[in-house]
Amino acid sequence: MNTGNFTYPIQEYIDKVEELMRQKSDGHHPEINSALDHLLSSGGKRIRPTITLLTGKMLGGSIEKLIILSAAIELLHTATLVHDDLIDGALLRRGIATLNAQWSPAATVLTGDYIFAKAASLAAETESSELIKIFSNTLATIVNGEITQLFANRGVVNREEYYRRIYAKTASLFELSAMAAAMLSPVSKETILSFKQFGYDIGMAFQIIDDILDFTGEQTTIGKPVASDLRQGIITLPAIYYFENSKDHSILEAFANGNYPLESEMENLIHLIKNSDSISSALSEAKSFVIHAREIFADQPDCIEKTALENLTNYIVDRNF
Amino acid sequence: MNTGNFTYPIQEYIDKVEELMRQKSDGHHPEINSALDHLLSSGGKRIRPTITLLTGKMLGGSIEKLIILSAAIELLHTATLVHDDLIDGALLRRGIATLNAQWSPAATVLTGDYIFAKAASLAAETESSELIKIFSNTLATIVNGEITQLFANRGVVNREEYYRRIYAKTASLFELSAMAAAMLSPVSKETILSFKQFGYDIGMAFQIIDDILDFTGEQTTIGKPVASDLRQGIITLPAIYYFENSKDHSILEAFANGNYPLESEMENLIHLIKNSDSISSALSEAKSFVIHAREIFADQPDCIEKTALENLTNYIVDRNF
Repeated sequence: MNTGNFTYPIQEYIDKVEELMRQKSDGHHPEINSALDHLLSSGGKRIRPTITLLTGKMLGGSIEKLIILSAAIELLHTATLVHDDLIDGALLRRGIATLNAQWSPAATVLTGDYIFAKAASLAAETESSELIKIFSNTLATIVNGEITQLFANRGVVNREEYYRRIYAKTASLFELSAMAAAMLSPVSKETILSFKQFGYDIGMAFQIIDDILDFTGEQTTIGKPVASDLRQGIITLPAIYYFENSKDHSILEAFANGNYPLESEMENLIHLIKNSDSISSALSEAKSFVIHAREIFADQPDCIEKTALENLTNYIVDRNF
Repeated sequence: MNTGNFTYPIQEYIDKVEELMRQKSDGHHPEINSALDHLLSSGGKRIRPTITLLTGKMLGGSIEKLIILSAAIELLHTATLVHDDLIDGALLRRGIATLNAQWSPAATVLTGDYIFAKAASLAAETESSELIKIFSNTLATIVNGEITQLFANRGVVNREEYYRRIYAKTASLFELSAMAAAMLSPVSKETILSFKQFGYDIGMAFQIIDDILDFTGEQTTIGKPVASDLRQGIITLPAIYYFENSKDHSILEAFANGNYPLESEMENLIHLIKNSDSISSALSEAKSFVIHAREIFADQPDCIEKTALENLTNYIVDRNF
């Protein structure tokens, strides 16, 4: 099974999304143009536009508006990444130098703002006020999640907080990608809400898998040190499972007291987590989200978009395993 | 003539705008709530909402939507100020500590982003896609202007560049405030464009006066060192007039070569500019913009909003003189 094959029904539209993103984000200033070009070239898998285009095409939405929506969502995502890199002081993303590594904070803040403006402007081109409200509220959710994380205590094992965090960080935008596609399609309010749930489910699964890969992946593949969250005292699902079944919470206490554990202690803990049942428990949880997501479109008539969406859900849990 | 008296026909609505801004920008996080509260308390004269409310009420627009629009525009303005303070490293604005002075850059960036999101969400509540497009494009204009300034050469005397800069920095949002109010009113396309011009004119006048006050004001009143732009090699209208009539461009050359002039040379230059005709020439130019602005609504039927708008245009050129 080639689980990576999910863009074939909409590849030509993905190309148009890329084109629209470039065209709309074209600044008047040459410096910003070259920065944006660089940013948009390192775009990754365009998984959010894929969700929007497959969902909307399956549901009979206008392709033209779906392309606009996809470009708007992907620009919104890009803008949040630009500001994130500044906040984290990240110098590399997907192996490519961030804007932050090359520019002053001022230029990075403004470039992110510029992309936000262009994203909002594109969202308005869908001519749906309801959609624009949800679009803006999703940005508020993402940013609020980041603010919460900024002020959060370290070393805290809390499932509810974890689910809220990954919703804000990832699932909210997946939810928007699927739900807004349904909103641009001739379907009932009930179907729109079903696809909201679909986006939520695959978004939650996607982030849980990311959090597993943070432990199991190779540093060269994930582009950052193994267990980078844990090293900062951020407790993701694999670590939550581990600590729920372990009596030794000394590292958590260290974080809670504002200390950073010794490197040797951290290496030991990472080894224990990787070799415990925690990884497979977290993976099962991600798979449950995906199974639930698949049930949502199971009753749609068979079509190539439906098959591609199935492949996409497989890809989400199978990537890098 | 009490030129400061221009809010009386709409004071109750201004209060509602304040309330809506607070309500909408309420974050889930206590830290951000207290920061936003602090920000919104130091709001200044709310001149942009005043323009929107007076224009829209005069033209028969829906008060409810005008209040929403005003809050959206003022939140957009607030968000740009938050990021500006970070970019400039400003510790005070209007005599009050900036977020930047109290918080990490990360928290400041995110708070600005959060307010952008809330501004966009409010703009969407006007239910006008056309308006939201113009709203987003105004943000793009403002940010693009700041990026241009960031990369601009210092010590350059260029009128066209100056007008472009103050349009991006100030007049674009005044233009939006008046134009969007007309868009929410039962008026012709032609009237909408007239009020776009009206907003542009008073915005240009407003910034020219700010640039004059930067020379003539007391440091304690303007809240920053006298001639703060000139000290950074940014040549505003009074200095443009001065250099157009002076043969001594040595300070400009110093800036162009990446040097900063000696404090004594700078003090001398500021003294020369203040005591030249440059100030009155710049003031005449601001007054021309205001005269042009007044002509635009001269043929509106007499009403209290029209009188208040006249007072507002007087205030713009008379403040602090």
